Amino acid sequence: MKRTQIKLCIIGFGNAAKAFCQILNDKADEIEKTYGYKVIVTAIAGRSKGSMIDASGIALEKMLASIQKTGKLSAREEDLIDCQTNELIEGCNADVMIELSTLSITDGQPAIRHIEKAFVRGLHVITANKGPIAWDFERLSTMADKLKRIFLYETIVMDGTPIFNLVRETLPGCKVLSFKGILNSTTNFILEEMERGATYDDAVKEAQRRGFAEADPSLDVDGWDAAAKTTAIANVILKAKLKPTDIDRTGIGGITIEEIKEAGLKNKKIKLLCEGYMENGKAIGKVHPVLVDRNDIFSHIDATSSALSITTDMMGEIYIIEKDPEIEQTAYGIYSDLLTLLKRLKYEQ
Amino acid sequence: MKRTQIKLCIIGFGNAAKAFCQILNDKADEIEKTYGYKVIVTAIAGRSKGSMIDASGIALEKMLASIQKTGKLSAREEDLIDCQTNELIEGCNADVMIELSTLSITDGQPAIRHIEKAFVRGLHVITANKGPIAWDFERLSTMADKLKRIFLYETIVMDGTPIFNLVRETLPGCKVLSFKGILNSTTNFILEEMERGATYDDAVKEAQRRGFAEADPSLDVDGWDAAAKTTAIANVILKAKLKPTDIDRTGIGGITIEEIKEAGLKNKKIKLLCEGYMENGKAIGKVHPVLVDRNDIFSHIDATSSALSITTDMMGEIYIIEKDPEIEQTAYGIYSDLLTLLKRLKYEQ
Repeated sequence: MKRTQIKLCIIGFGNAAKAFCQILNDKADEIEKTYGYKVIVTAIAGRSKGSMIDASGIALEKMLASIQKTGKLSAREEDLIDCQTNELIEGCNADVMIELSTLSITDGQPAIRHIEKAFVRGLHVITANKGPIAWDFERLSTMADKLKRIFLYETIVMDGTPIFNLVRETLPGCKVLSFKGILNSTTNFILEEMERGATYDDAVKEAQRRGFAEADPSLDVDGWDAAAKTTAIANVILKAKLKPTDIDRTGIGGITIEEIKEAGLKNKKIKLLCEGYMENGKAIGKVHPVLVDRNDIFSHIDATSSALSITTDMMGEIYIIEKDPEIEQTAYGIYSDLLTLLKRLKYEQ
Repeated sequence: MKRTQIKLCIIGFGNAAKAFCQILNDKADEIEKTYGYKVIVTAIAGRSKGSMIDASGIALEKMLASIQKTGKLSAREEDLIDCQTNELIEGCNADVMIELSTLSITDGQPAIRHIEKAFVRGLHVITANKGPIAWDFERLSTMADKLKRIFLYETIVMDGTPIFNLVRETLPGCKVLSFKGILNSTTNFILEEMERGATYDDAVKEAQRRGFAEADPSLDVDGWDAAAKTTAIANVILKAKLKPTDIDRTGIGGITIEEIKEAGLKNKKIKLLCEGYMENGKAIGKVHPVLVDRNDIFSHIDATSSALSITTDMMGEIYIIEKDPEIEQTAYGIYSDLLTLLKRLKYEQ
C-alpha cells in the first residue's frame, strides 16, 4: 500500500480542536493502516494559545501537555510564531484545513475568508463552523467543485451525528421535502428548568452556571443559533439559498412560567422547534417555540440531546437523535469528516 | 458517459417486489442519467403469479397491470415458464439477484441456497430477507468477498431506514459497542391495544384483522421475528456469530392486562426490546418485554414505527427512528441498495 503524508493545518484551537488532536494522536496507527495515509498537523493558528508551524509535524502529545500546563501550544516561547491566520493558511503548505474558528453569527466571518483562501491555495476544507454554511454555502461549495477540493462540514449540526452524510450517503435517490428539529441545547435546557419551576431569569443563570449559555445568552435565547443551524441544513439538504436573516425567527424570551404550566396541564411541553420546508418552490425556514404533545418523540429530547426529523419523497419520515453529547462527539464529527476525506482521496488515486 | 445494461432477476414476487418494480419503472430515466446504467428486469420467479424470463427486459408496466387484472405476471399463458428457482437463477444470465423469497425463520432457506447459487454464477445480491443474515451471514459475506460480488441487505431491518449503511458509511472509525431497539410491529401493536384495555386474545385478533399479524401469530408474539432481526444486526454491526436460536428470547404471550395496567400506574409501558452487546468478548443477544419509562424515547415508538439506538466508542449513543412505514418504504430499501450497488460498480470501472 502506498504511504502518503497528509498535512493538516488547524485554524482555531478551542476544546473541540484539543479533543480532535487527542483522537488524531490516539488513532494515528489505525488511520495509516486503514487508509494508507500518515496524517500530521503542520500548523495551528490559536489565539490565546499562540500559533505554530512545524513542517515535520507538531508533536501532538507534547503540545496537548503544554496547553494543560502553560495554556500555550508550546512552553518554549521561540516555538510560537506571530502571524495573521491568512498568512498562516498561505504559508503552511498543508493539504487540508480544519476550520474551527469562533462563529460569527452576523456574517460567518472570518471563517468564510479562511475557507476561500484555503481553496485558492489548493487545500481541502473541513469545518465545524456553521457560519460559512449558513451565510455562503452555495458560493463556497461551487468554488470547491470548480477547484476540485473536498468540502466537509458534518459537525456543524448535532456534532458527529450524521445529518448531511445521512442524506448524501444513505438515502440515495431520495429528495428531502422538509425537516424539523430540536437543535439548540441552551434553550432546551432553559425551558426544562422552567418546567421544574424556575423563572426565566433563574433558568438562564443556571444555564450559564452549567456552561450551557454564554455570558450574553442572546445568540441562543433569541433563536439566532437555531436559525443559523436551520439555514445551514436548508441550504444543504433542501438546496435552499437562505441566510440566517431570512428565517422566520422567534426566541424563547417572551415565554412565561404560566404558559409552561398551562402547557403541562394539557399534557404538552414548549420546545424551540427548527423547521424547513418547500412552499411554492421556495425554501422556508422557521425557528419558533411550539407546543409539543408528551406523546411526541420531540418532547423527550432532553437538555443537551438533539433530534432531527427528515421527510423525503421515497422514505417518508425518519428521525435521528443524538443523546447527551460531550465535546468528544464534536471532535468525532471532525474526525469522521477527515476519514471521509481520506477515503475519497484513496478512491481518486 | 458509457451506457451499460444491468440485468436483474427477482426471486419472490410479493407486495414489496411489486412496489419495487413500480419504482424501477418510474425512475428508469433518473437512474440512467445519474449512474449511467440502464436497469432492466430479465427474470422473475414468482409462486402463484408465475415465473418469466425475457432477455430483452420484461415490460414492467404491462406486467404490473397484468398482476392487477389476472393475478399473473402475464395474461398470456405462453409467457410464463415452469422451472425451479435455482434453474432460473442459473439460466437467466442476470447481473444482480434481488432475493425477496418468503422468510423461513427456522433455517433461512431457501434464500441461503438462492444467494449461494447467485454468487457462484457471478451475480451480485440484494436481499430483503433477514433469514440469510441471521443464519449464515459470515459464510455468505466471506463468499461474496472471495468472489468479488456485492452483497447488500439494508431492507432486512426497518425497511429502507439506514441501519447497516448508517454504521458503514456515516460512522467511520467507530466501533459499535451495543444496540437496542423496538423492531417488531406486531407485538408493538398488540401491547398498545392491551394498554387501551383489550385482552391479549382480542389484541391478537385485531392485529390479524388489520393485517399486522399472521394467521399463526407465533413468529411475532413468541419473539422469533425480533430474535432474527437482533441476530442479523448483531452479526453485521457487532461482528457476532450468532444464530436466532442463540438469542435469550421471551415473547409477549405471558403478559397480562393487569401487568400493563400496573406499569401504567408507574408511568411506564411494556415494550418488546431487542438488545445486543458484548460481554467478555462475546456477543450477547436478547429479546424480552421490558418496562420503559414514559420519558424514554422508546415508549413513544407507536405500532408500526420502529427505533434502534446504537452506542459506539467514539460517538456515544444515537437513535434512528422509522415513522409509520408502508410497503413503499420496504421497496425503497431495495431500491436504495440497487443505487448503492450501481454507485460501487461505477466507481470500480
